[in-house]
Parts: sequence; C-alpha cells; structure tokens
Amino acid sequence: MQIRSATEADWPHLWVIIEPIMREGETFALPRDGSEAIARAYFASPEKVNFVAEDDGVVLGASYVRANQQGGGSHIANCGYMTSPAARGRGIARALCAHSIDYCRAQGFLGIQFNFVVSTNEPAVALWQKLGFGIVGTLPQAFNHPVHGYVDSYVMFRTL
Amino acid sequence: MQIRSATEADWPHLWVIIEPIMREGETFALPRDGSEAIARAYFASPEKVNFVAEDDGVVLGASYVRANQQGGGSHIANCGYMTSPAARGRGIARALCAHSIDYCRAQGFLGIQFNFVVSTNEPAVALWQKLGFGIVGTLPQAFNHPVHGYVDSYVMFRTL
Repeated sequence: MQIRSATEADWPHLWVIIEPIMREGETFALPRDGSEAIARAYFASPEKVNFVAEDDGVVLGASYVRANQQGGGSHIANCGYMTSPAARGRGIARALCAHSIDYCRAQGFLGIQFNFVVSTNEPAVALWQKLGFGIVGTLPQAFNHPVHGYVDSYVMFRTL
Repeated sequence: MQIRSATEADWPHLWVIIEPIMREGETFALPRDGSEAIARAYFASPEKVNFVAEDDGVVLGASYVRANQQGGGSHIANCGYMTSPAARGRGIARALCAHSIDYCRAQGFLGIQFNFVVSTNEPAVALWQKLGFGIVGTLPQAFNHPVHGYVDSYVMFRTL
C-alpha cells in the first residue's frame, strides 16, 4: 500500500468509498440522502489537500488536511479519513492518519484537531487515541445516530 | 434597541464593525490583514442567517446562526456575534445572544455550540456562561494571540 497526493482523477474512486458511508449515516455528519456534490464539498473542497491510500492501483481510502481555523487559529490542522468498507481491518485508517501527522508537522502545523468524532464509532476513537489524540471535549448528544439515537460526539486533539 | 433580520444593504455597516475586530486579531480566528470578502465569508456566507441590533437606525452589532454540522449533526446550531467597539458595555452581545437562543429554539435546534471562544476573551466567556453556555472542551494553545501568544480556546455548548 502506498499513500500519495490525490488528483482530480481520483474523485470518482473517493465517491465510491464515501457514498455508502454517507448513506449509512453512522460516522460522518453528512445527510444520508446527500448528493455527490455535498460529499465532495465536505471531503475535497478547494481549501483541503487530499491523499489516497492505494494498493496495486486500487484506491482503498483517503484523507484530507486543512487549517482548522484562519488567522490566529491557522497553526492547528483538521484532518478527515475514510476507508473503503470492503477494506476495513487492513490498517488503512491508521496509515492515513500516521501520514497526515507527518505531513502536518512538515507543513509547520503545531496540532491536529478532529472536530466531530461520533462517540459510538469506538474503533475510530480507540485508533485515534493510539495515535496520540486525546478527547478534549464532549459535545452532548450532538449526533443523531440512525440506530442509537442522540449520542455524544468528541473533539479530539493531538499536539505535534 | 431592536434586533431584526439583516438585509443585503446591512453588510457595509457590518464590515465597519468587523474590520477593526479583525485587524485587532484578539477574538476572531480571522487573518488580521484579511479582506472584506474573507470577513463576509466568515460572518455572512449564504448558509448563515444574519441579524442586526440597531438603535435609532444605527447598526451596533450583528449575529449569525447556522447549523453547525450537516446530517446527523444538524440539530445543533452555531452562532457568532460582533459588537461595534464604540458600543461596548451596552448589553448588545447579551441581547443578540438571547435573541439567537430564542430563534434557534423556535427553529427546532436542540443546542447551540460555539466552536472557538478565545480563552483570553474573558468578558465573552463570562457572558456566555451567564446565558447558559458551559465550556465543554479546551483546545490547548489553539489561538495565537497578538499580545499573549499561544492561548487556549474553548468549545462552549448550551442545550435548548
């Protein structure tokens, strides 16, 4: 598996990955019936830098990196990740996150913030904790989960 | 003083208020040398609803309201406020915040989240606490303050 910068030509592959995640509605705060344009604005809008994880030419996951705030807040990055449901358990999210930690540090960011980690997404929370992120905030019942109803969401942070 | 919906014609008045706040760089995460377009995208982009507080036809402050997230997160609002530096101490921020609490509740939102309250902005933190907001997260050294250097920023939240 290698991680490389995404190109314009990668979006259709990213859409194939993010569409079922969006329809499932359990991890990203995106409308379950949302359009491809909404997904693209969320994950691959112009202010974001995208990377893809691919194996033998097949895109298995992707990440984005951006500054989380402007001005006095622009030294903290914000990142997001998605993994093809068919490729779960292969360490792709871990590899993408480790890559973005290195990338953000090289870009001069001093920290990474995840703004909205759904608390019921326990594998993700545990993985981010292993990679050095801590829960710095709990947003009470901030996510309406299609199965569990209103559940907390976390703000997670890692100093670089 | 009355609070009313903003119109297209109000923006020049809002810009007069926000420009010195942006140049000062102590409370909003906006570039100190940023353009009017950046300020407008931050405070009055199309997905936001704006209100103005005016006294005798003079705009003294403004607010925005939007959904903080999409999809499963769209029941939580995000709001922002600005007060003309010349009109500080007259209860304008309090009135605008109280108004947006009522407005958000009427719109069916179940909570309001402030994503980035600079910790050194103590009058604002104290005011939001009086209006029912609690600090639910601390973002370590997430704001580069022009006088105090790196300082914490808070995530604040109020259930409706």
